Amino acid sequence: MSAQDSWFIEHFQPTGSAIGFRLKGKLDQVQSPFQKIEIYDSTDWGKLMVIDGAMMLTTKDNFFYHEMISHPVLFTHPDPKRVVIIGGGDCGTLREVLKHPGVESATQCDIDEQVTRMAEKYFPELCESNGDARAELLFDDGVAYMANLPAGSVDVVIVDSTDPVGPAEGLFNKAFFESCYKALKPDGLLVQQSESPLALLDLIGDMRAEMGKAGFQSFKTLPFPQPCYPTGWWSVTIASKDAGADFAFRQADAAAKGFQTLYYTAPLHTGVLVSPPFMAKALGEG
Amino acid sequence: MSAQDSWFIEHFQPTGSAIGFRLKGKLDQVQSPFQKIEIYDSTDWGKLMVIDGAMMLTTKDNFFYHEMISHPVLFTHPDPKRVVIIGGGDCGTLREVLKHPGVESATQCDIDEQVTRMAEKYFPELCESNGDARAELLFDDGVAYMANLPAGSVDVVIVDSTDPVGPAEGLFNKAFFESCYKALKPDGLLVQQSESPLALLDLIGDMRAEMGKAGFQSFKTLPFPQPCYPTGWWSVTIASKDAGADFAFRQADAAAKGFQTLYYTAPLHTGVLVSPPFMAKALGEG
Repeated sequence: MSAQDSWFIEHFQPTGSAIGFRLKGKLDQVQSPFQKIEIYDSTDWGKLMVIDGAMMLTTKDNFFYHEMISHPVLFTHPDPKRVVIIGGGDCGTLREVLKHPGVESATQCDIDEQVTRMAEKYFPELCESNGDARAELLFDDGVAYMANLPAGSVDVVIVDSTDPVGPAEGLFNKAFFESCYKALKPDGLLVQQSESPLALLDLIGDMRAEMGKAGFQSFKTLPFPQPCYPTGWWSVTIASKDAGADFAFRQADAAAKGFQTLYYTAPLHTGVLVSPPFMAKALGEG
Repeated sequence: MSAQDSWFIEHFQPTGSAIGFRLKGKLDQVQSPFQKIEIYDSTDWGKLMVIDGAMMLTTKDNFFYHEMISHPVLFTHPDPKRVVIIGGGDCGTLREVLKHPGVESATQCDIDEQVTRMAEKYFPELCESNGDARAELLFDDGVAYMANLPAGSVDVVIVDSTDPVGPAEGLFNKAFFESCYKALKPDGLLVQQSESPLALLDLIGDMRAEMGKAGFQSFKTLPFPQPCYPTGWWSVTIASKDAGADFAFRQADAAAKGFQTLYYTAPLHTGVLVSPPFMAKALGEG
């Protein structure tokens, strides 16, 4: 590190590990009613969005997360038409969801409008589908929104939230998952970002337990690289109402998908369906 | 970060990103003729080995690297009996290689005996196979050792080196790869750690080009998580003398392997054989 260098370093207490990026400078900052949002320019990772000191996304590497929280669950569901995204204010997940031609409507409900305003300004590529006729953008409390949805009206719920502290705390407990369960059709699927599969396996276990209390029967945690999150390895967890769900996916459709991805492929999806042995053991699988 | 916390942070210039770990304290330090080796105790990652300021391994996460530099190449080779490891002084790769019952001899040649002495003391689990009758530990210049091997005498060469600066610089060029090519049998395979597949794809391309100048015809880069290396995502590159190599592996043997792994599985191996689209594009594949 030269004396001239400036770095953003996030010391993440739960994993005892840190990540960071070399900066060119700070571009913007806003204090919303909910959180502090900062935008930095970096030397090698494009722009960075930081919320309450936690790295949210970079231009360079957000595709891992956005693709992996969207495509596996959508290719697992037999025919997803109605999708709800809770959180996801940067709109990157919405963009991926709308790549699926069978999706008829996708509602994004994020509590903080300022996240979307900052994304429109600094990550316009993630917002390129916001004008899609199938897209609905709400700025509201996701917990209340989910609780008020008609029963059995949704095919896939995607919980694209921050860590389970602060504004997102209510998105990791039984009451919220009960709303998701009720809103989903019988073959509906819930997917949620589930933190580091190396360092936070206890949290994944706790989250699955809360989902189970709400009625979900089967779970599958899919790991993927995510350099801008602590440990550089992250996960999503899919929950099904079906006790015997094997999370087999529409492999032929995934292989013949008519849209571009940077990370997701059908063979990769097949590969991650088998948990690494240390994860399987910790999560009591197999 | 509380005022009491102490962290090891590595600012990695080539990727413009940093990684770090919360420390309990420093356990040991030695200046060998080649490099400075430090051992730290961490709060969440077990012990850390740092060489010339660069994180080499942690107790908690070294299994990703050691498994992925060993098992894919050994299950790709039809019948590996004679294995040479260049570098690898912490002995973790040697341990994985010797899990394969068909391996008749494995020679580890690391230039710096002090790395192995520190590993024996602070990472004894990685050294548990050092007394295996099939193991040979040499402390010598890997470039010279490889140049002097009889032609066509080796099945698999594993280059388990530090970054391509300092002592390991000579392990990333045509002259060294020519020695590997000569020492390998016609169906022999070379595998080398090849840095971050997200941030250092140019380096992987350069390395493949040097391997190609030495005669290798086909290449496959396999990515895997590695939290303690910059970007948290790392790779190995396998090189074959066969122009048409598809890097298909002994799937049935891998599925029925009679030894434990924490990360490697046969389905995972199948999944990583298809490069993520952004990697395939950057490396001119497919």
